[in-house]
Order: sequence, then C-alpha cells, then structure tokens
Amino acid sequence: MQRNFFITFEGGEGAGKTSVLKAIGERLKEGHIDALLTREPGGIEIAEKIRAVILDPVHTEMHERTEALLYAAARAQHFYEKVLPALEEGRHVLCDRFIDSSLAYQGYAREIGVDDVLAINEFAIGKRLPDVTIFFNITPEKGLARIHATRSDEMNRLDVEGLAFHQKVYEGYEEAMRRYPERFKVINADQPLEQVIEDVWGILNPIIG
Amino acid sequence: MQRNFFITFEGGEGAGKTSVLKAIGERLKEGHIDALLTREPGGIEIAEKIRAVILDPVHTEMHERTEALLYAAARAQHFYEKVLPALEEGRHVLCDRFIDSSLAYQGYAREIGVDDVLAINEFAIGKRLPDVTIFFNITPEKGLARIHATRSDEMNRLDVEGLAFHQKVYEGYEEAMRRYPERFKVINADQPLEQVIEDVWGILNPIIG
Repeated sequence: MQRNFFITFEGGEGAGKTSVLKAIGERLKEGHIDALLTREPGGIEIAEKIRAVILDPVHTEMHERTEALLYAAARAQHFYEKVLPALEEGRHVLCDRFIDSSLAYQGYAREIGVDDVLAINEFAIGKRLPDVTIFFNITPEKGLARIHATRSDEMNRLDVEGLAFHQKVYEGYEEAMRRYPERFKVINADQPLEQVIEDVWGILNPIIG
Repeated sequence: MQRNFFITFEGGEGAGKTSVLKAIGERLKEGHIDALLTREPGGIEIAEKIRAVILDPVHTEMHERTEALLYAAARAQHFYEKVLPALEEGRHVLCDRFIDSSLAYQGYAREIGVDDVLAINEFAIGKRLPDVTIFFNITPEKGLARIHATRSDEMNRLDVEGLAFHQKVYEGYEEAMRRYPERFKVINADQPLEQVIEDVWGILNPIIG
C-alpha cells in the first residue's frame, strides 16, 4: 500500500486553490500529519531565476515555445530539488499548480498542442505524474469576477480578450481530465470558501488524513 | 529546387568549427553570397539570459534535465528570432552547433537519452532540422590536445575524466549520424586548418556557392 502521496491543485484564476491549500495545510498540522506544501518556483534558486526570465516585462518577444520550455525547466528543478526528495523521505506533497497548468495554459489555450507540451513536461519530471489532482471547478466568468472583486490592481487584465483566453484554459483542463480520469477529482469551487475546504478535505482525509 | 539552405557545423572540442566557419564566411562574402553566420545564443537577449542561468557558477545543483530544457529554450528563441526569419527571407544560414550538440552532449554523454533529448529539441524548433550538417571528425584525444596547445587557461579541464566524457560525446555524434545519414557530411578535421577549410568549401560550394 502506498504510504505517501503527491497531490496537486489545479484550476483557473480565482478558483480559490491557494486559500484552500493554506487551510488544508493547517488541518494537516493540527492532525500532526507531515506534508510539504509548495508551489513553483517554491524558493528554489534556479527555478526562481528561470521564472524571472519568463516574467521579465522587457521580454515581449518571447516565443511561446521558449516560454513552455522555460516553465518545464523551472518545473524540473523544483521537482528534483524539493518535491522528489520529500516524496522519497515518505512525506506527502501538496503542490499548487503543476503539469496540468502547462497542458491547459500553454498546450491548449496558447495552442502549442497538448501532446507536445505533455511530452516536454514528462521529460521534465521523468513521467512522475501526481497521484491525485484536485480540479477546482468554476466558470471563468465567476472566477474572474472573484478576482475583480478582491484584487482591484488586477482589474485591467480582465478585459474581453482575457475572458476568451480563460475560457480556453477551462477547455484545456477539460481535455486534461479526459486524458486522466483516474487521477482527477473535481470539486465545486463555486461555493463559499469554507464549503470548498470541506469538500477538498473530504477527498484528502481518506487518503492522507 | 531549394534556393536557400540551413547548414550546421558540429563536432567535439578543438575540431576547428569556429575557425572554419569564419573562413567560409569570408569566402561567401567575397563571392557576394548572402548568408547569416551565427551560433547560440547569438546576441538574442532572451537566449543570452537563459545561457547566463545555465552557466552561472553558483548553480552547481542544476539537474541535467533542467539544463537540457534550458538549452532547448535558448535554442528555440535564437531559432525563431534569428534563424527562421533569415531562412524565410531566402538567406542561407550557417550555425555553429545546433540540435546535434544536445543529442551528443546531453542525450548521450550525460546519459539523459538521445530519444528524449531529441523530442524536446524537436519541440523547440518545430522539427525544422538543418538541411546539411558538417561533422568535423577528429578523435577526442587530438581535439583536446589542440585546445591544450592553444588555450593554456583551459588546461585544467582536460583531465582524465574530461577525456572519458569527450569520448562519450564522440560516440553521441556517431549515434546522431546513424540516425541522420542523409543530413550529415563528414570531413576529416585532423588536417591543417587550410585543408579543412578547402574540404568544407568543397561540400558547401556546390550547394550554396
């Protein structure tokens, strides 16, 4: 029987992943259950430097394939330096976004192709996919409206074109779920935060609780 | 009939690629033949920044898969920003090292696997392989001895372990040539520089001269 698990949280903007992960982390701590909570680049120096190249605002000319390879490179370093050692020590690992974000954002929404983006990401992580992936299901309209309501400094990004892109991201996640029906668990993220936490805990507690 | 060509120079250390490419460039200029001569990262800002992350000496903990993805990312940006536009303008492009260097160094010598490294590099360049690749054939012993003789500051790297690695690089190139017998042209690089230039020109002149 598998003793420790690699669990990822996925979903669009405003789905509540980060808040829920934090709350789950507190419950695990209360229950004295050892788990690493992380998200890329996760304080890993090389991954942080790669991320800085991706996000450098002067790099307006970055090709989408360069970007996809850089995300995969940062993922590899974070994975081998932080995630895999924790798994090998027998710890659970909960990661906020992982390979499926690349499938949805770069592969599907940016139209590079899900198969090709999957291939470079499998290269990055040696095909060590998560054991369980929780998809935070909420329509892009509602997710973006949440960000709109809570983060006024990001309002300018939420234009009509933004919504079309995020709808494609949502379709990209649907494609990922079709490919990995066993791995994905879908929760309704269009509920009050406390209920979403309960639903996620209801999935995780039998596995790692 | 194809009007312009994408040509790459490959081989181990001390094979003379860079000197020969420079001389070929002068001959093309004398013949008023338009060609772009380049090598990665080639002054492309994003590619230069990626290369700086790879070569940063504090990054001793870089995983070999991270490194391979970063080389592929720098390759993609140099390719789409510099090589492909030149090819689309109808210019010849001569590039000092390209995808086969990654197959030989990362795929074979670093033992990541030639198929896997090929896959991420095909992703990087959209499977646009060179039309012609000139392999500068010289034993690693002789190539390293040349560097030893001409670049005393690099002597310290040429230890016994170094030779074993460069022998694996050589075998990696042999593997690449087995896969692409049509694309590769082999020249004897264990000759005086002027003769190597003549031999390379003898291959290139019928194609682009």
